[in-house]
Amino acid sequence: MIKAGIIGSTGYAGAELVRILLGHPQAEIVWYGSRSYIDQEYASVYGNMFRLVDSVCRDDDLNALADEADVIFTATPQGFCASVMSDELLNKVKVIDLSADFRLRDVDVYEKWYGITHKSPSYIKEAVYGLCELYRDQIAGARLVANPGCYTTCSILTLVPLVKNALVDPATIIIDAKSGTSGAGRGAKVPNLFCEVNESIKAYGVATHRHTPEIEQELSAAAGEQVLLNFTPHLVPMNRGILATCYAKLKDGVSEEDVRAAYESCYAGEPFIRLRGSDLPETRWVKGSNYVDIGFRIDQRTGRIIAVGAIDNLVKGAAGQAVQNMNLLFGLDEKTGLELVPMFP
Amino acid sequence: MIKAGIIGSTGYAGAELVRILLGHPQAEIVWYGSRSYIDQEYASVYGNMFRLVDSVCRDDDLNALADEADVIFTATPQGFCASVMSDELLNKVKVIDLSADFRLRDVDVYEKWYGITHKSPSYIKEAVYGLCELYRDQIAGARLVANPGCYTTCSILTLVPLVKNALVDPATIIIDAKSGTSGAGRGAKVPNLFCEVNESIKAYGVATHRHTPEIEQELSAAAGEQVLLNFTPHLVPMNRGILATCYAKLKDGVSEEDVRAAYESCYAGEPFIRLRGSDLPETRWVKGSNYVDIGFRIDQRTGRIIAVGAIDNLVKGAAGQAVQNMNLLFGLDEKTGLELVPMFP
Amino acid sequence: MIKAGIIGSTGYAGAELVRILLGHPQAEIVWYGSRSYIDQEYASVYGNMFRLVDSVCRDDDLNALADEADVIFTATPQGFCASVMSDELLNKVKVIDLSADFRLRDVDVYEKWYGITHKSPSYIKEAVYGLCELYRDQIAGARLVANPGCYTTCSILTLVPLVKNALVDPATIIIDAKSGTSGAGRGAKVPNLFCEVNESIKAYGVATHRHTPEIEQELSAAAGEQVLLNFTPHLVPMNRGILATCYAKLKDGVSEEDVRAAYESCYAGEPFIRLRGSDLPETRWVKGSNYVDIGFRIDQRTGRIIAVGAIDNLVKGAAGQAVQNMNLLFGLDEKTGLELVPMFP
Amino acid sequence: MIKAGIIGSTGYAGAELVRILLGHPQAEIVWYGSRSYIDQEYASVYGNMFRLVDSVCRDDDLNALADEADVIFTATPQGFCASVMSDELLNKVKVIDLSADFRLRDVDVYEKWYGITHKSPSYIKEAVYGLCELYRDQIAGARLVANPGCYTTCSILTLVPLVKNALVDPATIIIDAKSGTSGAGRGAKVPNLFCEVNESIKAYGVATHRHTPEIEQELSAAAGEQVLLNFTPHLVPMNRGILATCYAKLKDGVSEEDVRAAYESCYAGEPFIRLRGSDLPETRWVKGSNYVDIGFRIDQRTGRIIAVGAIDNLVKGAAGQAVQNMNLLFGLDEKTGLELVPMFP
Repeated sequence: MIKAGIIGSTGYAGAELVRILLGHPQAEIVWYGSRSYIDQEYASVYGNMFRLVDSVCRDDDLNALADEADVIFTATPQGFCASVMSDELLNKVKVIDLSADFRLRDVDVYEKWYGITHKSPSYIKEAVYGLCELYRDQIAGARLVANPGCYTTCSILTLVPLVKNALVDPATIIIDAKSGTSGAGRGAKVPNLFCEVNESIKAYGVATHRHTPEIEQELSAAAGEQVLLNFTPHLVPMNRGILATCYAKLKDGVSEEDVRAAYESCYAGEPFIRLRGSDLPETRWVKGSNYVDIGFRIDQRTGRIIAVGAIDNLVKGAAGQAVQNMNLLFGLDEKTGLELVPMFP
Repeated sequence: MIKAGIIGSTGYAGAELVRILLGHPQAEIVWYGSRSYIDQEYASVYGNMFRLVDSVCRDDDLNALADEADVIFTATPQGFCASVMSDELLNKVKVIDLSADFRLRDVDVYEKWYGITHKSPSYIKEAVYGLCELYRDQIAGARLVANPGCYTTCSILTLVPLVKNALVDPATIIIDAKSGTSGAGRGAKVPNLFCEVNESIKAYGVATHRHTPEIEQELSAAAGEQVLLNFTPHLVPMNRGILATCYAKLKDGVSEEDVRAAYESCYAGEPFIRLRGSDLPETRWVKGSNYVDIGFRIDQRTGRIIAVGAIDNLVKGAAGQAVQNMNLLFGLDEKTGLELVPMFP
Repeated sequence: MIKAGIIGSTGYAGAELVRILLGHPQAEIVWYGSRSYIDQEYASVYGNMFRLVDSVCRDDDLNALADEADVIFTATPQGFCASVMSDELLNKVKVIDLSADFRLRDVDVYEKWYGITHKSPSYIKEAVYGLCELYRDQIAGARLVANPGCYTTCSILTLVPLVKNALVDPATIIIDAKSGTSGAGRGAKVPNLFCEVNESIKAYGVATHRHTPEIEQELSAAAGEQVLLNFTPHLVPMNRGILATCYAKLKDGVSEEDVRAAYESCYAGEPFIRLRGSDLPETRWVKGSNYVDIGFRIDQRTGRIIAVGAIDNLVKGAAGQAVQNMNLLFGLDEKTGLELVPMFP
Repeated sequence: MIKAGIIGSTGYAGAELVRILLGHPQAEIVWYGSRSYIDQEYASVYGNMFRLVDSVCRDDDLNALADEADVIFTATPQGFCASVMSDELLNKVKVIDLSADFRLRDVDVYEKWYGITHKSPSYIKEAVYGLCELYRDQIAGARLVANPGCYTTCSILTLVPLVKNALVDPATIIIDAKSGTSGAGRGAKVPNLFCEVNESIKAYGVATHRHTPEIEQELSAAAGEQVLLNFTPHLVPMNRGILATCYAKLKDGVSEEDVRAAYESCYAGEPFIRLRGSDLPETRWVKGSNYVDIGFRIDQRTGRIIAVGAIDNLVKGAAGQAVQNMNLLFGLDEKTGLELVPMFP
């Protein structure tokens, strides 16, 4: 059994890690970290875990945790993981960081978009970007995995086959994304109150959202050229789900068949990517699962493709992907514990 | 592997059976019955099943199905199962009926409350009421199981320890229940449209809801006397979940400790009942799972107990309980395939 | 024009006062009080008021406000209004208190249920309970009006005709109430976050909710005897609306016609009470309006009546009723500014 | 008093017309048309209208209606209004058509996108496109007004100042729009059931939605050149509201100040347009009102503007705009009956 510790287990992503790991046949949770709820029963914070988890929440004692665990998940605010990173830690345990600390390869980009100083830039190079479908091999041998952001997972996987195969003009990419409210976290803030979110939709972080450089980094890598794009997230009155509606100009002569072939060759055999063709994804079809559903339509009038991706932000967008990374790190079948049937309605 | 056929697989309860059976290690679905979608891909009706189910929907050919299956689930409108019941069928397969056809032991009560003639009353006696916590032993040897209603499961399990132990006056029982909208089914009706249900709550079926006699039947059996009660369901703008708020006068001298002891002795060792004491249930804590959460408070001022039960109406209130019955019928561990961790948020 | 000041204008009830008073032909708001947002643009706190309100929020300077205003609405936490009450104040302005400070006639009951010491019990006697349909005449001449609670308004108006006419046994009254989430206020608390409330229903304050003694006080007055009852509120994933499902044993020989007659005689000519007979209320039909919809059913099997009331908790349950009181205080037609057509969907 | 008849009064747009006209000081409804509910009480179809409307629904007898009314609103399926159009009718009454029959100036475009034959193309030329902010003068003298679509109202008003002032490259326009579910109408269809819409978001009508040519027509007119664009609507789990997130490349040298100036000069004095600058609109701030909220951000990195518009689809997107047109047709102050304060929450 893999012994797993979770720092930040009482946020929504942390709680989803608990849900998934409880059903994982080869892992067990040995540490429920939570600065806000130290010494409180985990099941008193998440009532769904009543009788399933009988542990109390513990403080962030990385050293103690590293001695008990084989893998640590850090589902913590930006900056935390970087502040505690060390060789001593990585020599003892694998670390899967759900924050953004090690996602961006350029520390200047990180510091500019996040507005904080990176505390351990020397580990950026070692860290592997944990988008399993793209970096499977590197992940397997890593000590430190930078688990991708929710919007970025959905956006990158939807667009990579198009830019990698040079089917679209990268300068024309626009991503209009919509997320359920669990993406906003469990912090007690007025804008996330039920009555503020319910019966409304809004854009936020327009032209400034921090997932932008992460998407650009990966699409640039796939395109072999620098990609700048617009990414606009929206808050939707639902608990879970991300839908990314992506626009780009097709290059001359690119046919629907070319696009279909690109997706199919990119994602052949991928266990968690479901290509739906022209039957566009909806978030209800992936809820609770680790699937990425992708579909597309071509508008012959404007020469644009509209590619749409859907994920559950807490699963493939956070905890599920983290467990997928764990499986890779420990040589398990990537699907172990992740064959979650989407729950509808 | 148990071969399962589902008649009515495209209703919400049927679809939940599919979700649960797909994760069941000892069962496989061999027949996706659906009168409305004959010859259509099941995954085109429920997009979450894309790549998980590659079957088409089939008509209700009970004879053919009985030859292929070990167990048939009928998630059909009232009257259907009774209309097809026969010894020939029961000699071939086990039948778990999710409709009300065989729940009420008195055919007159059935015909009065449901307003239809029972087509095979002779099987009522044979049928076992599939509330596993109460009739576990009889279910194990049955050919025909009458899977309980959603409201009834929640209400009966919440109240049985109180009436069985004569802690309350049965004549004072009032059940005020609230249900998510999946309980209303997938039929295309104006009152179930998003805009009609959203941002509203209403009572319905007041004093006439068909789950009333079913609850009364079981509470009468537990009480050893005829119980008449008020049951008032309400429609809540959420997908899943039933909350039953139950009121009754405590008999003189009954203490909180007596009540607690009654619940604990009734449900000791029950895998799916979680006694929460004075920490009252909320539907969010059971979503997607087979749990029944039960709690209570005593109002010393009025001498009443307020006992609250919560279930996921599609799981313990329908498909989960049906699979629990299947497990019992086939001698499996009752929990097989049902250790679903509640999904929150 | 009546000059109105609002203390606590940035809570949901305060904001609803603003919405209603902006449409009131004979009132204007001269003071937007808000301790949390002092000196901030009101329209930056409530974006719907952009271009409609160009004032900034001001501190709670009662003396200054009393000089500027004809009437003060206090939509403040319990205890505030009592702490500032004085003859000097009441000699200058009318006060309509939306908190509970002056609703309960017995200061001991107040202090027991609210757990705070009443700072100005001497004004309890003078205060008039602002349930216009019951105390219209007294309100007209008052200086200090205690605006009723949301649950209480709905519950009392639904039950008064029954107890006043001795049609039910008051000892058997149970009120199972359901409220939209705006009733929980705009405070930043985890339990009120979107993801916590959405897709769930729960009971809260069971046997201890503070609206209980207020309902009992008024029903006792109507019954001419001490009434003790159970009141159980539930939180519903919707913004607005209260539904009160009320149960009681009918006295022997009471007919449906008797009940209907009682409601009709009690509420003949009432502009804001809509008797719907056996067509039970739903909160969607009163949203945004000052209406109280009431209906009932009798269960001959159990001898109980189920009477159901519905209001918009922010209108008739708070701000609308407060304006109705203001109209009475200033000799205006009670309906002035309150003929709001319910908004659906 | 203007006598108004509504054909299609039991759809959501028709019902919103009723809500608004009930509060209009100079109009009264003389005809509640509804083919589906002939002879039924209007208030039995829309319970919010109990005691406010005591009429029954009537069939579509245009001749009789034309004799009784001064203005007819047709809130009917595509094709109906064109099928009944005649000089005889227009000589008797003004017609405000909420369908698409007279919005598109090119009958071929209409027939291609709507897939039906236009029954009275000769009236297309006469009809005035009822976007009051753009065609105020022509509307005043019209007999037949083509009330714009919901998405189109929001999209056009958000983009016109940019294209009219040549601030953006029209070939780069992309509109990603999100709508509440009332836009889907009150028809009993499975995809609009509560459980299908709730907790999900989807794109629909991608590259084929019928509002596309309407938006292109008006933006082309403003731009003075042919505009082709992408318009992608999404269904959001909320009752009301449209948010249009619009993307376009700014022309070289265009500054934020230029954009601001363009909006301000275009919409100076407009009673229903609220320019929010960089404080982007959210649908919650316009709910129930006739406002169009518009804001924008410029992304210097990509050279694109992201302009966002928000309306209530049933008010400014349908019934409110229709009443605004009525006011213009009858020489009333355009704001009459439309100064609806947005309702939040």
